[in-house]
Amino acid sequence: MRHAVVLAGGSGTRLWPASRQARPKQLLPLGVGGETLLESAIRRGQAVAGTRVIVVTAASQVAATREVVPGVELIAEPLARNTAAALGLAAAVLLERDRDAVLTVLPADQHVADEPGLTRILHTALAAVEQDDVISTIGISPTHPETGFGYLEVDYVALGIVTSVRRFVEKPDRSTAEAYLASGRYLWNAGMFCMSARRLLAELDAHLPATARAVRDIAAGRIAAADVYPTLASISIDHAVMERAKRVVTVPAAVGWDDVGSWAALPALHGVDDHGNTITGQAVLIDGSGNIAISDDETLITMVGVSDVVVVKSGNAILVIPKSRAQDVRKIVEALSVRGLARYL
Amino acid sequence: MRHAVVLAGGSGTRLWPASRQARPKQLLPLGVGGETLLESAIRRGQAVAGTRVIVVTAASQVAATREVVPGVELIAEPLARNTAAALGLAAAVLLERDRDAVLTVLPADQHVADEPGLTRILHTALAAVEQDDVISTIGISPTHPETGFGYLEVDYVALGIVTSVRRFVEKPDRSTAEAYLASGRYLWNAGMFCMSARRLLAELDAHLPATARAVRDIAAGRIAAADVYPTLASISIDHAVMERAKRVVTVPAAVGWDDVGSWAALPALHGVDDHGNTITGQAVLIDGSGNIAISDDETLITMVGVSDVVVVKSGNAILVIPKSRAQDVRKIVEALSVRGLARYL
Repeated sequence: MRHAVVLAGGSGTRLWPASRQARPKQLLPLGVGGETLLESAIRRGQAVAGTRVIVVTAASQVAATREVVPGVELIAEPLARNTAAALGLAAAVLLERDRDAVLTVLPADQHVADEPGLTRILHTALAAVEQDDVISTIGISPTHPETGFGYLEVDYVALGIVTSVRRFVEKPDRSTAEAYLASGRYLWNAGMFCMSARRLLAELDAHLPATARAVRDIAAGRIAAADVYPTLASISIDHAVMERAKRVVTVPAAVGWDDVGSWAALPALHGVDDHGNTITGQAVLIDGSGNIAISDDETLITMVGVSDVVVVKSGNAILVIPKSRAQDVRKIVEALSVRGLARYL
Repeated sequence: MRHAVVLAGGSGTRLWPASRQARPKQLLPLGVGGETLLESAIRRGQAVAGTRVIVVTAASQVAATREVVPGVELIAEPLARNTAAALGLAAAVLLERDRDAVLTVLPADQHVADEPGLTRILHTALAAVEQDDVISTIGISPTHPETGFGYLEVDYVALGIVTSVRRFVEKPDRSTAEAYLASGRYLWNAGMFCMSARRLLAELDAHLPATARAVRDIAAGRIAAADVYPTLASISIDHAVMERAKRVVTVPAAVGWDDVGSWAALPALHGVDDHGNTITGQAVLIDGSGNIAISDDETLITMVGVSDVVVVKSGNAILVIPKSRAQDVRKIVEALSVRGLARYL
């Protein structure tokens, strides 16, 4: 049967100060109508797997996650060990109850504008898995020379048509990204894919045997996760499996996908007003455009004479940063640790 | 005897969001060591008048003012009618108890770095008043071609030496201000002056008779201030008296004076750190200089990659504005009125 696995283990720094250690990105009400990104991801999973959606999260985030999605099954990892362990554990747990489990893996911190379009793409990817036991990724048709994503190289791109993946490539530099875009043969690796649970564990047996053994033991109740998890390699499913596996295909998609990697992604989610500004909460912006103003309570944000600047008030902290440097929020997060200001993390 | 009159009737928009209708600029803890500007002004008054310091403020600000300076005598105006009425009322009240009252008038919202220097200057000005019944202003030796102040034209400038004022001039444009600075014959009109109470009322008799009559009636208890104040002309003491009076002198001073007219004045009060930033409260600033970050509580202000920007968190509002546009805070204040957001004023 088809199952969806939503990966919700984010640690929450790139959208600081809204995202915090105790309230990662996917639990923020950033979606349309105030929906959390996690709820959006679960809905995308339900569109292909019905009620068989399972969320993998960190034990430290279980309470906060349950508050947001009380009806959804959770798998709690005692600590984060990247996606190979998380997906291995989910696959092992689901295999215990369904030897024919086919997984649709969905990161919890993404935005998709065209949900019905994505559902059609996922159905195509699942059909390929169910017929040929391939690994079927979703390849996003790139809209600009993004340097923040990995890419999939293919022979040709036809939207919605399954094609083989020649190779996975890491985040490129700017000129490489431009060449990728111009070639028409590269797709963004969105981290969404479909694969049978049995194959996923077989791939881990081959490439990451200690993790494969551990997650099987945990799922069968032979060992406590907390006892073995600290020993597991912290490695992504891409590095551990995808880049080494045979018979990996992709379904090219143009569905308004964004990974909500920084505050600069907000206009794509929420749109802009007549002045090109994106506002959530109370704000008065004068003589400026391209700004993002986000306030999580009744605190009023005012801006005069600045453009392309992000201002976020969330809880006990305020962030002011040019949109072009939105990735550098991590510098603040690092500085807070170093300066003994962890109460703001 | 010598008395000091501190004018504390400010309406509080230029330092929004710290200054509000209910908490004007002079009641903010902007001074060195968290002292309010009003306390600083009172101290300057006490340096020449001992305990005979009286504060003129608006009735709506009496409670807040008394909280800051509980031991100081207040005169409450039922509503603001600019400085001619405020000083007329103070002079009339003081004349009732001291026919020889000599006033030192001090605005409440200014900063003076060299307090002992100012005290010496005021003693010189007072001596001139007491000997010759002149109006003796304090003329600040200009440090830059400021367009935000009025000027006094004199024949020559010698610091601390009394000289005649040829004329009062309004705020100049940039090139005029540069010419004033180059000439060496213009001083900033700081709004500080010394004059006998009797002469002040005599000048009002001559130039603003209705106000003179009203303040005498109020001081003598013949009429309630609330009954007559709304009918009084709203005019400054400069326009009503100083510009028309004979025998006006000035004492040129170089005492680190600033009128704290906008957030851009804060570095002059508080200095800058190694990166040229001025910080009050919790803040972490990365990759930027010339910024001003002010937080009135534990809320952390963070800034990455911006320079010469003012960020103020005060109460329920946040302001982000380039330092060069600090005067445009009024645009926010106006917009808040228009948009029905008066709860932020």
